[in-house]
Amino acid sequence: MLQNIRVVLVNTSHPGNIGGAARAMKNMGLSRLVLVEPRLFPHHEADARASGAGDILAGAQVVATLEDALAGCNLVLGTSARDRRIPWPLLDPRECGTKVVEEAAQGIEIALVFGREDSGLTNDELQRCHFHVHIPSDPEFSSLNLGAAVQVLSYEVRMAWLAAEGKPSKVEKYEATSPRSETLATMDELERFYEHLEQTLVDIEFLDPDKPRHLMARLRRLYGRSSVSRAEMNILRGILTETQKAARGELIKRKD
Amino acid sequence: MLQNIRVVLVNTSHPGNIGGAARAMKNMGLSRLVLVEPRLFPHHEADARASGAGDILAGAQVVATLEDALAGCNLVLGTSARDRRIPWPLLDPRECGTKVVEEAAQGIEIALVFGREDSGLTNDELQRCHFHVHIPSDPEFSSLNLGAAVQVLSYEVRMAWLAAEGKPSKVEKYEATSPRSETLATMDELERFYEHLEQTLVDIEFLDPDKPRHLMARLRRLYGRSSVSRAEMNILRGILTETQKAARGELIKRKD
Repeated sequence: MLQNIRVVLVNTSHPGNIGGAARAMKNMGLSRLVLVEPRLFPHHEADARASGAGDILAGAQVVATLEDALAGCNLVLGTSARDRRIPWPLLDPRECGTKVVEEAAQGIEIALVFGREDSGLTNDELQRCHFHVHIPSDPEFSSLNLGAAVQVLSYEVRMAWLAAEGKPSKVEKYEATSPRSETLATMDELERFYEHLEQTLVDIEFLDPDKPRHLMARLRRLYGRSSVSRAEMNILRGILTETQKAARGELIKRKD
Repeated sequence: MLQNIRVVLVNTSHPGNIGGAARAMKNMGLSRLVLVEPRLFPHHEADARASGAGDILAGAQVVATLEDALAGCNLVLGTSARDRRIPWPLLDPRECGTKVVEEAAQGIEIALVFGREDSGLTNDELQRCHFHVHIPSDPEFSSLNLGAAVQVLSYEVRMAWLAAEGKPSKVEKYEATSPRSETLATMDELERFYEHLEQTLVDIEFLDPDKPRHLMARLRRLYGRSSVSRAEMNILRGILTETQKAARGELIKRKD
C-alpha cells in the first residue's frame, strides 16, 4: 500500500535536497517522487546525496505544475511552517503518518507535498491541500532542511505502516463501515468542482470577483475535509448546473 | 532539561553531515554537539549545511575518544542497524525519545551516539551503550544518512519533550483558530439548513418532491460528516438565498 503514496517537491532550488529526499524515502519504503519545476534536475549533486536511491531519482516524474503533480490524488497533505491567515485542519507528523496509512490501506491515492527551501508552499498551494502538516520545531529556528522534513514524515508513515501491519483488524473494520468505501473524487475532479462552484457563485452574484474575501478558501476547507466521493461530487455538480440555469432566467422562461 | 542531552558523532567522514546534524539538532531544540575525531572539521561544507545552526558548530566539542565524549554521562544510547551478534536492550526511536526525556527530567546526563557513515558503531562502542536504538527502515535499503538519523531521534526527543511539558505538538496559534474551535452549528441550525437546502433544490428543479431518490439523505451524510461551523453555515445559507432569488428570476429582472 505504500506505493499509493507520492512525495511531491515544489520548485526545489538545491538538487542535493532532491537526492536527500529520495534517500530518506527509500529508507522508509516509499518510492514515488514527483518534482514540480525543480531548478536543476537531473544533477550530480542529487545523485551524490541520493546514495543508493538512484532508482528513485531515475523514476521521478518531472511536471510543470502542482496540479499535474496531484492528478489522480484523493488526499493531499502539505507541509506548512508558518502561521496562516486561514485556519486549516492541521496534523502533526504522527497524526499524518496514521492518516496516510489508514487511507492508503483503502486504496486512496495520497500526496505529501513539500514547498520551496526558502519560502515553503504559497497560500494558494496550501489551499489545495486537505490537511496541513506542521513538524514541531523550536520556534526560534523552525525551518527544517527539505530532506530532513521528508525524512520525518516518511519515518512517521513507516511507523504507522508497521503498526498497521501488526494489527490488520483495525483497518478491516474501518473499510466495512466507512463511507470511504465509495470511490473518492480525485484532486482534479475536486478542482473542476471548485471552478464550477466559483463561477456559479459569481453567476448568482453571491461572490464579487473584485472582493472575494477568502470565500473560496473557506469553501475549499469545508469540502476538503469531508472527503467527497465521486457520487456526491456528481450531485453537487448537478446542483450547480441547475443553479446556473436559474441565474440565466431559464426556469422563469420555461414557466412563461 | 534538553540541555542535559548531548549528540555524539563518532569519526564522521563527510563534514556536510556534521552540518546537517547540527541543523537538525537546533530545529528540535538540542544544542550540545560532541565530535569524536571527525575527519574534517571545521569545514566550509559543515557550515553550509548547518545553515542557521552555526552556533552549534562553533560550540561543538572535539575529542579524541568515545570515552572522552561520554565523560559525565549517566545514560548512553547508541544507534545500531538491526543485526548484531550480542543481544542488547533495544529501543525504537519513539521509545528512545520517551526514555531520554524521562531521564533528562531527573537531571540525568544523556548521550545519543551516532557511528560512521559507512560502518556505524563498532561492537566495542556499542557495548559502552546502555541501550541501542534502531530506526526502522526498509531492510532492502537500511542505511540512513547520518544527518537524517540525527533528525529522526532529535524529532522523537522533541515530541516526547512537548508531551512531557504539556505543550501541543502543533503551533498553538493554529489550534486556537482551527475550524474545530469555531463554534459548530447546532443540530437545529443544521436542520434549518437542510430544510432551506431542500426547498432551494425544489426551486431550481433539481429535486422532484415526488421522486426524491434519497437525495437529501446523501447530502445530509456529506455535510453531516464535516462538522460544519456556524460561520460556514451562514455562507451556505447565503448561497441558498441567492440561488432562490435566481430561481425566481430576480437577477434577470434586475438586469433588464
